[in-house]
Amino acid sequence: MPGTESQGQAPDRGVCIRPVRGLPLLAPGDDLAALLAAGLDREGLRPESGDVLVVAQKAVSKVEGRFVRLAEVTPSARAIELSAATGKPAPLCEVILSESVEIVRTRPGLVITRHRTGVVLANAGVDASNVAPTEEPETVLLWPLDPDASARRLRGELQARYGRAAPAVIVSDSLGRAWRLGTTGQAIGVAGLAPTRDRCGERDLFGRVLQATVTGVADEIAAAASLVLGEGDEGVPAALVRGASWTASDAAGLPDLLRPIADDLFK
Amino acid sequence: MPGTESQGQAPDRGVCIRPVRGLPLLAPGDDLAALLAAGLDREGLRPESGDVLVVAQKAVSKVEGRFVRLAEVTPSARAIELSAATGKPAPLCEVILSESVEIVRTRPGLVITRHRTGVVLANAGVDASNVAPTEEPETVLLWPLDPDASARRLRGELQARYGRAAPAVIVSDSLGRAWRLGTTGQAIGVAGLAPTRDRCGERDLFGRVLQATVTGVADEIAAAASLVLGEGDEGVPAALVRGASWTASDAAGLPDLLRPIADDLFK
Repeated sequence: MPGTESQGQAPDRGVCIRPVRGLPLLAPGDDLAALLAAGLDREGLRPESGDVLVVAQKAVSKVEGRFVRLAEVTPSARAIELSAATGKPAPLCEVILSESVEIVRTRPGLVITRHRTGVVLANAGVDASNVAPTEEPETVLLWPLDPDASARRLRGELQARYGRAAPAVIVSDSLGRAWRLGTTGQAIGVAGLAPTRDRCGERDLFGRVLQATVTGVADEIAAAASLVLGEGDEGVPAALVRGASWTASDAAGLPDLLRPIADDLFK
Repeated sequence: MPGTESQGQAPDRGVCIRPVRGLPLLAPGDDLAALLAAGLDREGLRPESGDVLVVAQKAVSKVEGRFVRLAEVTPSARAIELSAATGKPAPLCEVILSESVEIVRTRPGLVITRHRTGVVLANAGVDASNVAPTEEPETVLLWPLDPDASARRLRGELQARYGRAAPAVIVSDSLGRAWRLGTTGQAIGVAGLAPTRDRCGERDLFGRVLQATVTGVADEIAAAASLVLGEGDEGVPAALVRGASWTASDAAGLPDLLRPIADDLFK
């Protein structure tokens, strides 16, 4: 077994993912930790040591007020260029550029950038669905300013409430992949857990030392949570994941999950 | 909610992933369906409609006898070139090439190819861990000849046993990603379920029609299962996933999960 530094129960009983439902529509300044705790209560869920609370990026962004009204955005020359290349509205391109450090690929209908956090993704995470009522058209929602900091803040508030049983926190979004169709839940901010799990040095079934087995455990947990998180009209902003094995860390964050640019073979 | 064609319970009770343990070391010709059914029995798990059985690629490859002894491989000139570029043994390079339709990227210590199934991954899925006892060095294990066919065969045998309650089947492997560190469980063969879930046309919380929300549900289920599948000495070759929402399909397969080459921006 993974050893003493891993948290979470052994996989004997498996892993369960419970939706945290029934939260109100979220607005800037809402106390997300309190709302999530109330949601956990309503579900009869009491956090246990080893749990991970996965919170949808949109929920975090909304309480952090990361809305932008496109009518108030003045596109730069570069945004106008990007708009011509992609067919996306120039104000939206301006917002995407303002959230990015690099344009990775473009083509009509598609822009893939390196977000300022280092994540490579479509539209720099700028999203127009589930953002605001249709009476407020053209309002988009950006990622949190610092998703790791958001996760840490949320975890701190949960620690004040639950003490040592407070869950680790993952902020997740549904992201595309280079060669595969369909999005999967992936971690964009973490607090309390190491997002990768290095199994080098552990032994395989035949006693051979594993050479290069690093699992992206935070992404696997985010993907699992995505099976219950709502993107449509379910309105499920969070899920509690119980039973996964992971390594506790107060220092780790999203950068541990991102391939360094120098190693990027697909820039 | 996702509508009538989705299978699996509503996410109300969440999703649970149970390990199927205690299988013997697998060898060519073993009856994997019977062994998995016995394993499910031992865990007290009786498949229910909407369940998905995720089976590790290694387990499938072993019963299908996909072993290659590198000592018996004669490297081609191309393999010798690839060996020089990557530092990997030439016989291993020969096997990797024989499993690939395209070399996508190489650098010392790393070769990324497009596997003959279309999956882009490191080493064409050729694996040397947990393959055979250390007394038989340099035996590697290849992916199943046709992972979708393996999944369909396994599902057929489970249908003979469980009838309409037979689970859908995903064959999974732990694969790397272009810009992120760590592997995640991903589907490489499917039977009985559509690997993507197109949510276009569903409405968001504000009644706005979702534009481009296709989730890679088979990959999310595979990632979730990976939280209990053993890569080290746990020896957990399969997991039963209950409670996920997915769309039944007898026709779908891995190709539905792969971005067509013409759309590949990262060749």
